[in-house]
Amino acid sequence: MPSTTVNGRHLLKNYPSGYPIPGTTTIYDTSERLDLDTVPLNGGVLAKLVVLSIDPYLRNTIKGNAPGSVQLGQPLTGFGIVKVIRSEVPAHSTGDYLSVNGLYHQEYSIFTKDQLSSAELLKADNRLPLSVHLGAAGPTGLTAFAGWKEFAKVKKGDTVFVSTAAGAVGSLVVQLAKLESLKVIGSAGSDEKVKFLKELGVDVAFNYKTTDLRDVLKKEGPIDLYWDNVGGDTLDAALENASTGARVIICGSISSYNHAATSAGVKNLLHLTSKEINLYGLSYFALAPKYDAEFKKTVIPKLADGTFKYLEDRKFGLDQAPQAMLDVQNGGNTGKSVIILSDD
Amino acid sequence: MPSTTVNGRHLLKNYPSGYPIPGTTTIYDTSERLDLDTVPLNGGVLAKLVVLSIDPYLRNTIKGNAPGSVQLGQPLTGFGIVKVIRSEVPAHSTGDYLSVNGLYHQEYSIFTKDQLSSAELLKADNRLPLSVHLGAAGPTGLTAFAGWKEFAKVKKGDTVFVSTAAGAVGSLVVQLAKLESLKVIGSAGSDEKVKFLKELGVDVAFNYKTTDLRDVLKKEGPIDLYWDNVGGDTLDAALENASTGARVIICGSISSYNHAATSAGVKNLLHLTSKEINLYGLSYFALAPKYDAEFKKTVIPKLADGTFKYLEDRKFGLDQAPQAMLDVQNGGNTGKSVIILSDD
Repeated sequence: MPSTTVNGRHLLKNYPSGYPIPGTTTIYDTSERLDLDTVPLNGGVLAKLVVLSIDPYLRNTIKGNAPGSVQLGQPLTGFGIVKVIRSEVPAHSTGDYLSVNGLYHQEYSIFTKDQLSSAELLKADNRLPLSVHLGAAGPTGLTAFAGWKEFAKVKKGDTVFVSTAAGAVGSLVVQLAKLESLKVIGSAGSDEKVKFLKELGVDVAFNYKTTDLRDVLKKEGPIDLYWDNVGGDTLDAALENASTGARVIICGSISSYNHAATSAGVKNLLHLTSKEINLYGLSYFALAPKYDAEFKKTVIPKLADGTFKYLEDRKFGLDQAPQAMLDVQNGGNTGKSVIILSDD
Repeated sequence: MPSTTVNGRHLLKNYPSGYPIPGTTTIYDTSERLDLDTVPLNGGVLAKLVVLSIDPYLRNTIKGNAPGSVQLGQPLTGFGIVKVIRSEVPAHSTGDYLSVNGLYHQEYSIFTKDQLSSAELLKADNRLPLSVHLGAAGPTGLTAFAGWKEFAKVKKGDTVFVSTAAGAVGSLVVQLAKLESLKVIGSAGSDEKVKFLKELGVDVAFNYKTTDLRDVLKKEGPIDLYWDNVGGDTLDAALENASTGARVIICGSISSYNHAATSAGVKNLLHLTSKEINLYGLSYFALAPKYDAEFKKTVIPKLADGTFKYLEDRKFGLDQAPQAMLDVQNGGNTGKSVIILSDD
């Protein structure tokens, strides 16, 4: 009898109606096994997941009523770093670390050559932990950088407002803004996160749970650029306090991910006409190729030398993925959420 | 006793909570009189209103809770054409017709020289009625043209959706789109308006009161450009059926003008991120100077020779203004709403 290994998977069990419920909407499943030595690769690669990225947008992939949604009983799909165990693809050698988008949330996967065509080989870099290549030095950071370069159009003296500013994307956005000496207003959901924002140099950092958003924006605005990770009423408040010619970058919408049915929606779009405001939808996949090289050249060195700061929320073991799914939706995490599966 | 003339005015009497109510929210008032021959001009101009423009956006100027709102008891402010009666400004002669923005809704006004600095002298043009210079050949048409030129970014094969397509702005937008041989979907609120849309060459014209908007867009989309005069759920439906990289031009928001408190708001802004959609706020005042010369050169001749069609909804006498205010909000008008005050 061949020796087999459990292939733990993070599966969609039930479509969530509101927030994800660990163990109910997604589960950690150990029913699948495979023989690492003999499983056929059919010209592909067998690889082990070593770090998994848990991002807010994942909530949007398990809605069930949209094309492309994950199906019940299937593993979620996302960003991760894998280590090659066996390879029949000349370009990929055993021991290589690859950053992959579109991998299944499972401990072992077999990839075809095509599936790895856009995977990135991560070279040993002692300055940054591997996991950071999924966060500030990876897709999360590139999301912030690409959106900023493409849409921000800031000028001297501008005031920038960032919601969920202590989050994985937001915390890089505020640092990009401070690098240009702009006035930055940042909201977060805990005093601990507000403290982090102050360390990042945010001029006006506040806890939106204890301080009235509209009071802050009225006093500290008007806002020339709003980086929106929240949507809903926060976006309405920003539009009310926007300057003429303001830009809004729509990066995420935590408020509507989990409350789509009951969400009040955005009521202030008419401000777009009276104040000449443009809203830009930020798509990582559309912009990443355009800004990837510049990001690597300008941002990653600043992360490595400590100019740019980041926080990670590390959990250990794929069985923690269901809880991490909830945390990134309700603010239970502080910093970029990653699941560490293995030290090697 | 000097001979005096009634100076009829269109006044804000009560802030509307929903649709304007003729005689309740705005009224025609005849309590003011003036002596046309002796009223002091203080270096300015006395002029008589001959055509008044009634536009949907006026609803937004009588909300009461916003800075810049018309105050109770005061006349509304907007676009109109006046005829100069007496002048102490060398640039303006008796008998001149001036197109003015920011005039009071009243039969006679005294303007300072500065107030007329941006007024436009209308030369005799037998090909187009004077009133059209407030509509298709004036600010309304320029709104459509400027927004189209600045934001539409259409390419061959694009599908364009226009809401309130038979309206003053919409009907020019659909003709600009057809001029570029694009597929045009247009919605309107009556079968009569749908008939007009078909005359304009609209490929898919439908009455949104009797045909399901989402069915049409699903079948005829996806939409590459949406020209939004409505907001709310119509915008949500357009976002659901938008293509990747679609543009949305926010021109007006009839749905939120009159139902701000109860409006459900826009829930689908998250589509902006997944489909790389941008929303552009169209401000007449921001764009008019940039496109005015090109508009006069390219659009007005097409109106004059009949290439571009337009409809006018003419009412006679300023006492009709309160009713016209309601009509342009609930679709009771067909074509650009103008009040004709005088034949000379």
